[in-house]
Amino acid sequence: MQEWAEAIRRGDRRKVARAISWIENRDERREPLIEALFPYTGKACLIGITGAPGAGKSTLVDRLVSQVRRRQGKKVAVIAVDPTSPFTGGALLGDRVRMTRHALDEGVFIRSMGTRGHLGGLAHAAKEATRVLDAAGTDVIFIETVGVGQSEIDIMHLADTVTLVLTPGSGDAVQVFKAGIMETADLFVINKADMDGTKKLVHDVEEMLHLAKSEAPWLPPICETVSKDGRGIEDLWATLEAHDAYLKESGEWEKRRFVRLRREVQEIMGEELTRRLQAHVRDPCFQRDLDRVQAREQVPHEVARCWLERLAGKGGDTP
Amino acid sequence: MQEWAEAIRRGDRRKVARAISWIENRDERREPLIEALFPYTGKACLIGITGAPGAGKSTLVDRLVSQVRRRQGKKVAVIAVDPTSPFTGGALLGDRVRMTRHALDEGVFIRSMGTRGHLGGLAHAAKEATRVLDAAGTDVIFIETVGVGQSEIDIMHLADTVTLVLTPGSGDAVQVFKAGIMETADLFVINKADMDGTKKLVHDVEEMLHLAKSEAPWLPPICETVSKDGRGIEDLWATLEAHDAYLKESGEWEKRRFVRLRREVQEIMGEELTRRLQAHVRDPCFQRDLDRVQAREQVPHEVARCWLERLAGKGGDTP
Repeated sequence: MQEWAEAIRRGDRRKVARAISWIENRDERREPLIEALFPYTGKACLIGITGAPGAGKSTLVDRLVSQVRRRQGKKVAVIAVDPTSPFTGGALLGDRVRMTRHALDEGVFIRSMGTRGHLGGLAHAAKEATRVLDAAGTDVIFIETVGVGQSEIDIMHLADTVTLVLTPGSGDAVQVFKAGIMETADLFVINKADMDGTKKLVHDVEEMLHLAKSEAPWLPPICETVSKDGRGIEDLWATLEAHDAYLKESGEWEKRRFVRLRREVQEIMGEELTRRLQAHVRDPCFQRDLDRVQAREQVPHEVARCWLERLAGKGGDTP
Repeated sequence: MQEWAEAIRRGDRRKVARAISWIENRDERREPLIEALFPYTGKACLIGITGAPGAGKSTLVDRLVSQVRRRQGKKVAVIAVDPTSPFTGGALLGDRVRMTRHALDEGVFIRSMGTRGHLGGLAHAAKEATRVLDAAGTDVIFIETVGVGQSEIDIMHLADTVTLVLTPGSGDAVQVFKAGIMETADLFVINKADMDGTKKLVHDVEEMLHLAKSEAPWLPPICETVSKDGRGIEDLWATLEAHDAYLKESGEWEKRRFVRLRREVQEIMGEELTRRLQAHVRDPCFQRDLDRVQAREQVPHEVARCWLERLAGKGGDTP
């Protein structure tokens, strides 16, 4: 595993891709690998991009990738997470298109992740993927999701900066505010800002921000972009950098990462416990104990307590 | 606690009411009490009644209560669970009305339960309440819920017989079928069957049952009632008794109760684990370990593993 970790740290793209496949397939090797890589993580800047389908997020991220590459030559990665799709590993059409655009650029790594094999753990898998890329020396990682549901919010929790993309006339602004993603957004992008209704949308968002965040130390800026011709992308990137600087200067960056790590440790514990809980259902001893409860010879709490101890101590039976 | 258990077993109504309050308030005494009562439970017949608001469930249950009392003199209880209401302990208006009707009848116990203090554990609380009533010698317990959402389905899982109440012209039949409660219903009641559209509704339900349950050993009967004047109530009660007989003869009764007990034990384990997981967040040692993760001196999985062992073994810190 040490070999793999070293290859990834040198930026070996094939090994990075394989490692992410391990993560997706819950391959046993992923855990020791992530552990070996962990000490070398925490440096990449994680930018979340979310918004309703059709808001032009993919094109926007493409433009941002080019922007970062052109101006600063930093290493960039994109993880496109689609909680509604079972497809993975670059199987999405949009992915192939993007692959082509940046195909010859060794400094860009693009990967999509779907729900395959993940029992609600897609956010966790995405986090592990960012870690591999982080250890591989990636400077900026864009985490892109489709939609504004709960799983998207979970995924956005991985990011240092959460960017919410809206479009004029789509009527999704109100939906978005209802969905509670507003609270997590650090930055609003009005994409397709050459369309009618841009002014009204900017106004609506400003008003809602004024109501909800007027007391906050960081008032989320609103950037207007036209991703298809690149208008506003430079400004957007400058704003993203400004937010990064704000996070670091205010101590918010450290604080957010601490909260995230805490959540992660708790999630790992929760996942592991669920796994153990499910595994013991098939244990004949458990069945026998339940028979005794059915016969009123034992009480449910007693059996629960006893099995809690068991499954906590030994790691439970293998499924 | 033994004293309390004995009083409850003798049918002491005040003690029964207090015990249910303990359950609602998650009082520490509830657990030893339920354990002391458990050996004397498992005899009551548990009948679930659910359906959309306005379907006339409360009146229907009232009529059924009178029916059971008149014909057989059995002890009856009603637990009305409203997952959308924070009110408890007989605070609901409908409850007071019912209280009055059966106020002088010592053989009837009516209680409503709301969501107060329950983190998604309302079904569990309702189950504990049925157990108190069961140990108190109640023969028939009606568990009534409002609506057909997920929490109602969870609550219906407590019952031996699940009764779904529909009304003509309300257009909720399709909703109900969509909501997945159809799979759990053992019996359909078309209430307000003096209204237009009764025939059509009966026909629709028959058709859907034919599609979904034609292979099932028990084809859910459809009873027509008019709860406001009592029409059809005798037949409904006879059908409920027929289902009880079917369950016992087919072995389904034993099987369902076993599955329920298994689910209960797992729920207790899950609840307990969640409690422990949340309690240790405030532990200074946990904070210190997270600081070390933040500093990249330890990996998240390592800390998770170590705390899993701890919180499993000792029962976690007190919150």
